[in-house]
Amino acid sequence: MKRRQFLRVGGLAAAAGAVAPALASAQTPDAKADTPVIWQLASDFPDALDIPRSGVETLASALADITDGAFRIEPARDDKRKTPALDAAREGRVQIAYTTTALYVERDPVFAIGAGLPFGPNARQFNAWLLHQHGLDLLNDSYRPHGLRVLPGGNTGALTGGWFTKEIGSVADFAGLRVSVPGLGGPMLARFGALPQTLFPTDLAAAFQQSRLDVALWSGPHDDERLRLHKSAPFYYYPGWQGASQLSFLVNADAWNALAKPHQAALTAAAARTHDMVQAAYDARNSPAIKRLVAGGAKLKPMPQTVLTELLKATDSLAENLGASNAAFRTLYDSVRLFRTDTYLWWQVAEYTYDNFMIRARAQG
Amino acid sequence: MKRRQFLRVGGLAAAAGAVAPALASAQTPDAKADTPVIWQLASDFPDALDIPRSGVETLASALADITDGAFRIEPARDDKRKTPALDAAREGRVQIAYTTTALYVERDPVFAIGAGLPFGPNARQFNAWLLHQHGLDLLNDSYRPHGLRVLPGGNTGALTGGWFTKEIGSVADFAGLRVSVPGLGGPMLARFGALPQTLFPTDLAAAFQQSRLDVALWSGPHDDERLRLHKSAPFYYYPGWQGASQLSFLVNADAWNALAKPHQAALTAAAARTHDMVQAAYDARNSPAIKRLVAGGAKLKPMPQTVLTELLKATDSLAENLGASNAAFRTLYDSVRLFRTDTYLWWQVAEYTYDNFMIRARAQG
Repeated sequence: MKRRQFLRVGGLAAAAGAVAPALASAQTPDAKADTPVIWQLASDFPDALDIPRSGVETLASALADITDGAFRIEPARDDKRKTPALDAAREGRVQIAYTTTALYVERDPVFAIGAGLPFGPNARQFNAWLLHQHGLDLLNDSYRPHGLRVLPGGNTGALTGGWFTKEIGSVADFAGLRVSVPGLGGPMLARFGALPQTLFPTDLAAAFQQSRLDVALWSGPHDDERLRLHKSAPFYYYPGWQGASQLSFLVNADAWNALAKPHQAALTAAAARTHDMVQAAYDARNSPAIKRLVAGGAKLKPMPQTVLTELLKATDSLAENLGASNAAFRTLYDSVRLFRTDTYLWWQVAEYTYDNFMIRARAQG
Repeated sequence: MKRRQFLRVGGLAAAAGAVAPALASAQTPDAKADTPVIWQLASDFPDALDIPRSGVETLASALADITDGAFRIEPARDDKRKTPALDAAREGRVQIAYTTTALYVERDPVFAIGAGLPFGPNARQFNAWLLHQHGLDLLNDSYRPHGLRVLPGGNTGALTGGWFTKEIGSVADFAGLRVSVPGLGGPMLARFGALPQTLFPTDLAAAFQQSRLDVALWSGPHDDERLRLHKSAPFYYYPGWQGASQLSFLVNADAWNALAKPHQAALTAAAARTHDMVQAAYDARNSPAIKRLVAGGAKLKPMPQTVLTELLKATDSLAENLGASNAAFRTLYDSVRLFRTDTYLWWQVAEYTYDNFMIRARAQG
């Protein structure tokens, strides 16, 4: 499989440049709270994506407010566009990264689980798995060998199926399509002959224009409109194969361990507030965006159920293969899959039936 | 309408007892962080409800950890069962209350909106309204005359329709039924001849046993099982008429204003973490609970769609009446209803259709 990873494209693998190694300034656990701690943050999200950008601002301002300026987070001073944020945090060039770990699935498939799996739990269920089914502990166990800790930092909610230059009627239509989709979606589609690559989100529109791409999936209508994907491919499929797409703060493990306990607690709480604000922003802004996109000519198409069924089978098979050679992935996947299956039992009783009534009532005025 | 408010039943209106007026110890804005602040918290949730109980623990421990013990929250030392928590906070006998404002709808219908309305947004949409549609600001405007500020403190998700001693086929069957349901559900059902009262949750099972109650609604299967409602009434209806039920921290406005800015920020962030943890706990535990309830003999019954349609109409009419004499209610209601209608447009595209596929795939194994 030859996937063009965004980490490797052109000059993108360039080293970090002028970021100071800031670990030296990190606080030791017994340090006084009046010794200021200043962390650098690297983000994988382009500035065009205003919701993740606001997530960084929320985290930084909450943390500064809580600590009265004693613990501050600043954007890294290099060109974030050229620095895979996970590497910057792992190598200690910054203390914290903001990303979707879906970008790093080729490094280790455990990163796919932290970002939300094909046919995984929906956003609320994913959070329940993280916070009440030891999901976050399991993720941290699997990120430890990478020198990273994770804090949830928002969720886009259910993905669409993405933007297509041509219509699809069955999985056979994926053969030969050049697709850029996050996480395990790439290898999943490759099982049907698609040619996956992982482009940086701001490169998607240009790749379409230069006829180098047939299918692009990033997240949902608000982000997609800002990336101008609707200008490039007419068919917008729904639903996608992923019910949740998690944004993550990845913290350098040494930097975390060097933090005073109150600062660890402040960062955890500030991240929780960011998680809420980012999720809420997507939930507030996707509806106006889909209205604008459809009014502007986007052709909204239902993903055939037979396609989703085949993709689900392919995901199960793919996960089995990955788990055979990666015990951490297998542990995580088994945990998240079991919880998903259990929790949809309750979902179908009250949540889904309530939404069903409200959607029908809305249609009837 | 003669509703028996839990605030007024038996000795429940007794004054607070031994709670010290702790405002005197509150920090002034320019106080140093090393002057400890100790707040008393009153909760309307009985100890039987382990998730709200854990919410108090999460808030208190997050806040103590963040501030290194400089800002602590302790349960009020009186019998919480006998003190309406909102009053305790409003009158300054405690600095913070944990409650569902659905219990206080008779005081002011704006409290219904803060708790989640009949046919309002679902839990994620409600949070989006709070955080990105000025919902929280509007709520705070309407709570100001009561001397209170609100911080979101969790959400149970969609309610069921509750426990019924007899089956219902149409809204005519509500006539003469003695019902205890939260928020505007009571006056809504009264429009069809039901006799609403608001019992304290731990009194519901006894009221059934003594044949004083025909219908009880609290929240969902996990809470309901702990309240032993399934031992009292056989028919459990789904879905309910409410897609979200918000738990709230109500802060005495003077106590809030006396807090140092970093402590205000710490409390806000600690509440956000609590909100996530409480919502996640309900989402994790309702599925095992509904399994146990059904295995134990609960008769799960779909609420007839015709009944829901009539209840929706009654809610619109009720809200119009309430808004005619309460401008704050009308402002809030118009805002939340508009957002609900807009946001379900996106929900039906990707969230609902994803859940639909997952539920069908689960049923097919």
